Amino acid sequence: MLGNFSYMNATKLYFGEDSLQYLKEELSKYGKTVQLIYGGGSIKKNGIYDAVTEILKACGKTIVEDAGVMPNPTVEKLREGVKIARDSKADLLLAVGGGSCCDYAKAVSVSVHSSEDPWEKYFIRFEEPDCQIVPVGCILTMAGTGSEMNGGSVITNHEAKLKIGHVFGENVMPKFSILNPKFTYSLPKKQMVAGIYDIFNHICEQYFSGEDDNTSDYLAEGLMKSVVHSSLIALDNPEDYEARSNIMWTATWALNTLIAKGKGTDWMVHMLGQAVGAYTDATHGMTLAAVSLPYYRHIMPFGLAKFKRFACEVWGVKAEGKSDEAVAQEGLAAMEAWMKKLGLAMRTSELGAAEEMLEGMADATFILKGGYKVLERAEVVKILREAL
Amino acid sequence: MLGNFSYMNATKLYFGEDSLQYLKEELSKYGKTVQLIYGGGSIKKNGIYDAVTEILKACGKTIVEDAGVMPNPTVEKLREGVKIARDSKADLLLAVGGGSCCDYAKAVSVSVHSSEDPWEKYFIRFEEPDCQIVPVGCILTMAGTGSEMNGGSVITNHEAKLKIGHVFGENVMPKFSILNPKFTYSLPKKQMVAGIYDIFNHICEQYFSGEDDNTSDYLAEGLMKSVVHSSLIALDNPEDYEARSNIMWTATWALNTLIAKGKGTDWMVHMLGQAVGAYTDATHGMTLAAVSLPYYRHIMPFGLAKFKRFACEVWGVKAEGKSDEAVAQEGLAAMEAWMKKLGLAMRTSELGAAEEMLEGMADATFILKGGYKVLERAEVVKILREAL
Repeated sequence: MLGNFSYMNATKLYFGEDSLQYLKEELSKYGKTVQLIYGGGSIKKNGIYDAVTEILKACGKTIVEDAGVMPNPTVEKLREGVKIARDSKADLLLAVGGGSCCDYAKAVSVSVHSSEDPWEKYFIRFEEPDCQIVPVGCILTMAGTGSEMNGGSVITNHEAKLKIGHVFGENVMPKFSILNPKFTYSLPKKQMVAGIYDIFNHICEQYFSGEDDNTSDYLAEGLMKSVVHSSLIALDNPEDYEARSNIMWTATWALNTLIAKGKGTDWMVHMLGQAVGAYTDATHGMTLAAVSLPYYRHIMPFGLAKFKRFACEVWGVKAEGKSDEAVAQEGLAAMEAWMKKLGLAMRTSELGAAEEMLEGMADATFILKGGYKVLERAEVVKILREAL
Repeated sequence: MLGNFSYMNATKLYFGEDSLQYLKEELSKYGKTVQLIYGGGSIKKNGIYDAVTEILKACGKTIVEDAGVMPNPTVEKLREGVKIARDSKADLLLAVGGGSCCDYAKAVSVSVHSSEDPWEKYFIRFEEPDCQIVPVGCILTMAGTGSEMNGGSVITNHEAKLKIGHVFGENVMPKFSILNPKFTYSLPKKQMVAGIYDIFNHICEQYFSGEDDNTSDYLAEGLMKSVVHSSLIALDNPEDYEARSNIMWTATWALNTLIAKGKGTDWMVHMLGQAVGAYTDATHGMTLAAVSLPYYRHIMPFGLAKFKRFACEVWGVKAEGKSDEAVAQEGLAAMEAWMKKLGLAMRTSELGAAEEMLEGMADATFILKGGYKVLERAEVVKILREAL
């Protein structure tokens, strides 16, 4: 049953090959100082840095550099970004990159005018911001996290061996995001498929919960079918614009709150994957891929009807003359075959995880209660062991 | 291929049984004078009028009555509403009703501060507002039009025998909409099913266009399956909350611009239906139902691949061993059976149309160019004759 909820998502999206031209229009809404947030410098190689800074300069903006955002942004980097924003009195945080840059920009945005330590306030105590929020804009160069149209931010604390996400409210969502599918072409194939699995799993996390008959689940199935379909085209030809554009659009809608409306959600694959990530610093999508099937096969008996529906609706499994369990298993087998075709990590050992990390990773796994089976700690260890 | 576009939809939605309680919070954002827009008085019978005015009074608002909005709001009524808003200096237009009240409120909102005649400016010349826009809020009592989260407004001019819709931009969309599925319970079944077909056809209009492989089409299929599924439950039990809530949610997402992004759209069923409506003043959803199958059977050969996909994905038609045309026809036959089960008008003569109106209705039909076949006038007459 569709429960009670509110929905608002006011991020303005500019989508398409020509979308960067709208940056100028957006910049006119903000003050002079723009903190330019980016990663390891790939945007300098592929020309995006030059294109963006040219527009910033033409608009008379003062550019404050904030480079070196790592794939899993750390709490140390976050503190550095907050200092840059304070020192420069940044009027706009402009993230140019993937989900890491967008996540990081949002974490900075709620911390600049807060006197408390952001890690403690937002990622340990999960408080909402009670201070002025610096506006964030995104220019996306990788499809996957959906960070361009949500309030989510994931920060890693290597010292504490914790990778924690906080989904902030509407007021923290980016004010605008520029989505040019061609900006994702220069990504290595490994990063592309990791992003694709991240999209797919975001949808799964919201789908595998609840016994309800819910419009959100029908939308989720549509998004899953679209991303699976386009992923195989992009695998053969990463410069297929249609496929890359569909992948980029599904990423946004997979995690901008829509398909979670009125229903429960699971998110245990992310909890397991983030624990693996905290120990291995591996690519987010790959950690999710490596823990997914051990987890889903473990919970399948507790959500059999939904796994059967997943098999039939998403993977086209024919149900006639088969037990529900056989249908559900066939669905997961089809998903496994697709994942292998993409070349995803199917075991955490491929990502650097090892037997001696199991207990620590289990300790780092937050156990959520929205899925078909609330895990015991022993089950977490069992799943992490199977995923090794 | 996903083309270039922008997307922004900032309407705040409050959904669920308890959603009216959030009116108070929204009212605090606007001035003292609230123009209360409603229809023929059914909200006085079912208690919604009392519930709303109690909140308005508790918030210290001055209520300006604007009752009597008819199912197809007329240009005369629009001019009356504009005068009420001007005389009272209304700070908020609060529509309590179905799509007609919401559409009307939006038409008033862009006309209060304009010196020109709204019919000429917005519905003949299709201009965008260049004046202050009075904010609109909606409390929905009927699911169908999607007017609660879009910029659309349809106004009827009986003298000119024209019913014309203008889709305004983001700044005309309601600031907030309150969606309580239980508020739709008291609708007569005939109105309920007309609303359901309106939803379904909104999706069809955006689906039956383009040869592309587009995420929007996957979302459209999900919405169609959800509304068909829930419609049959609601037909048996109109007070099934789950079904009515899914219907209400699909209505909103069927027409808030999402599923048209990056693709062509058709909208010829609406053009034909609105011409029938201008002559018969019949319920909008019923006019769409009565012209749909003659139109879709006529254009099917020109968009065969999409009609085949529609048959398989939405209606579960098995394609093996059949010609594409046979599959496509089976899909339309399944749609026809569903429509008959709902009790929709299958012929315009049931709605008061007659042979002698054919030429006039054809004249009143705007021919759009986004569908699989750009109609000639003779084809319009042929379709309208078959629909009689």
